[in-house]
Amino acid sequence: MGRIITLITDFGTTDGYMGAVYGVIKSINPDSEVINIASNIPAADIRKAARALLNSYRFFPEGTIHMVVVDPTVGPNRRALLLTDGSYYFVGPDNGLFTPVMKVTGDLECYQITNDKFRLATGSETFHGRDMFAPAAAYISMGVAPEEFGPKIDNPVTIDDPDPEKFGDELVGKVIDIDAFGNLVTNIPSHMVKNDSCIIFCNHKITGLSKSYADVDEKQPLAYIGSFGNLEIGINKGNAANFFGALVFDEVKITDFK
Amino acid sequence: MGRIITLITDFGTTDGYMGAVYGVIKSINPDSEVINIASNIPAADIRKAARALLNSYRFFPEGTIHMVVVDPTVGPNRRALLLTDGSYYFVGPDNGLFTPVMKVTGDLECYQITNDKFRLATGSETFHGRDMFAPAAAYISMGVAPEEFGPKIDNPVTIDDPDPEKFGDELVGKVIDIDAFGNLVTNIPSHMVKNDSCIIFCNHKITGLSKSYADVDEKQPLAYIGSFGNLEIGINKGNAANFFGALVFDEVKITDFK
Amino acid sequence: MGRIITLITDFGTTDGYMGAVYGVIKSINPDSEVINIASNIPAADIRKAARALLNSYRFFPEGTIHMVVVDPTVGPNRRALLLTDGSYYFVGPDNGLFTPVMKVTGDLECYQITNDKFRLATGSETFHGRDMFAPAAAYISMGVAPEEFGPKIDNPVTIDDPDPEKFGDELVGKVIDIDAFGNLVTNIPSHMVKNDSCIIFCNHKITGLSKSYADVDEKQPLAYIGSFGNLEIGINKGNAANFFGALVFDEVKITDFK
Repeated sequence: MGRIITLITDFGTTDGYMGAVYGVIKSINPDSEVINIASNIPAADIRKAARALLNSYRFFPEGTIHMVVVDPTVGPNRRALLLTDGSYYFVGPDNGLFTPVMKVTGDLECYQITNDKFRLATGSETFHGRDMFAPAAAYISMGVAPEEFGPKIDNPVTIDDPDPEKFGDELVGKVIDIDAFGNLVTNIPSHMVKNDSCIIFCNHKITGLSKSYADVDEKQPLAYIGSFGNLEIGINKGNAANFFGALVFDEVKITDFK
Repeated sequence: MGRIITLITDFGTTDGYMGAVYGVIKSINPDSEVINIASNIPAADIRKAARALLNSYRFFPEGTIHMVVVDPTVGPNRRALLLTDGSYYFVGPDNGLFTPVMKVTGDLECYQITNDKFRLATGSETFHGRDMFAPAAAYISMGVAPEEFGPKIDNPVTIDDPDPEKFGDELVGKVIDIDAFGNLVTNIPSHMVKNDSCIIFCNHKITGLSKSYADVDEKQPLAYIGSFGNLEIGINKGNAANFFGALVFDEVKITDFK
Repeated sequence: MGRIITLITDFGTTDGYMGAVYGVIKSINPDSEVINIASNIPAADIRKAARALLNSYRFFPEGTIHMVVVDPTVGPNRRALLLTDGSYYFVGPDNGLFTPVMKVTGDLECYQITNDKFRLATGSETFHGRDMFAPAAAYISMGVAPEEFGPKIDNPVTIDDPDPEKFGDELVGKVIDIDAFGNLVTNIPSHMVKNDSCIIFCNHKITGLSKSYADVDEKQPLAYIGSFGNLEIGINKGNAANFFGALVFDEVKITDFK
């Protein structure tokens, strides 16, 4: 079995974009295994793609190459990136997609992809997913060293990825992701929450952490440590985003945090 | 080539859930081949997932492992299951997902997954797809025997999966699935329908079975034996669910059945 | 690694249809590699599927088999096709799906699939994707020659795939595809457009070609040569289909073409 290349994109499942990317990768490295893990990121939603990557990349075998293409600023002036923490490789546009991963891994070596040897010569500047990132992913999977793609850089674009803030006795966090089930993922890590913390969201007060949805009555809100290690707010057999009319960046407060 | 693991889930294609599941499986058994066959089951729609499984599982090679995760009652008190008919393996939550398959296969050996040796130690109780079912599927694909996962049980949760009923000269069945094209799948098997049976649905009378959509005029309803062997109602070049405003469990009557 | 079979369908991601197709292929040829490149083609949208195929097929390694199933006229009277240009193979219903590819490749050998030896004997006439096209794709991937599937034909059904027309100084083209981002793909090839051409669409005048979206202000329209070589109209950080209320077959004019 060859090495794994995963795809997170906003390409959707109605056009030939995904097919072109698969085709380019398999033509360069027939032994690679391409796994499509999120193809319906909302168009241009960098933050959502960054979150999907953060929540899944580390479960793959070492050596896996994660290609993330949500690319509203595609063009000759937007840098193309290749990053690695020594275990995993990441390729995608320089627009902040890798900010949350960088926060977790600490130091990620970052290269700008400039070597035209690894670029598909289509003349197009609007589909770097096919012309730059797919070949880069394929050549990495064949063992080409990161240095060969271009110069090391130390200033990748970052997006705002807020941390919770303390105001006296209160911890103020934010909703940073809303998943397909309507669960609200906050930026508050498990170690800042007590089992009996009081969580305030949208004028609702939730007392204490639940272990699973069934700990509260149906259609009632609960707070719990989500599967990726952060405080989440959900509804037992319901959709918290709809229930609260919640949006990303809404505030979540804890009055008695750790 | 290693063994096949298929996935039927309500995880969608915008989050990192699918990626985490793929990653866990490929990390345990790099030689397994993971095939994503239905990732947009409506959230918590157990019945829909059960139907997708029933309609596809037996077309795969023997030894295939079918992982089905639609899991509204996820938590430490909901049992995790591993089932087998000797040819195929099934893993998923104990909520009725496997009821239709059990009806077809007759006796399915059923095990509760309790052995923590095969569990991902994340401490989370809200994502058993990643932490319990993905590892179980991966270890089965490596040849671990069902008995090693936990005790045999004989009382899995079942869902209502109605059979058609006879009232004098009339057979009363139900719509049990509506597919992506709006075709209405009933619970009436082909052997109960005559070629010239009279089918009544929503005050419409359809006389006789068609062999294909083109047997009736465009936008007209037809009845036919569907690709999975049951009576279906469709519209030639149209959407029967929209045409009739049909819902799952709507009644279908046959006045002259076999 | 075995040969690649790609899938473009309107089967969606909520039913067992995709699973049945995968299962049939993998049961016949376990060494094939099945790649799902577009599973949410709008129901019965032959034109959209034809476009997805055209934009992706040639990026795959030679020998790849492209299975395209959007099949509103499925039934015993609709011919099943197998086509090849010597490099790639195509299987699908005879309804025009392959028209754009035929225009590009010139001569495509075309066979009608009639040999029941390669058909799944389900008795159904409503799911040829599973019963005819999946087996055909699988057997081609195992080296069965096209002639064995049935007779050569020279009159496949075609769909209207308009070319731009010249009226004096004016070139009149059409929108032939709208992608998931709302970009408008026209039928005007790059060689007919000058860098400073004046493009008129929906009473908007766009002067000159841009190289990338960022060449214009945010939310402003631009014209550019798209990633597949045709003139496209887009909006920088916006959705051109929504901006213009555009539909497929809307007219695009160029007053000073090449």
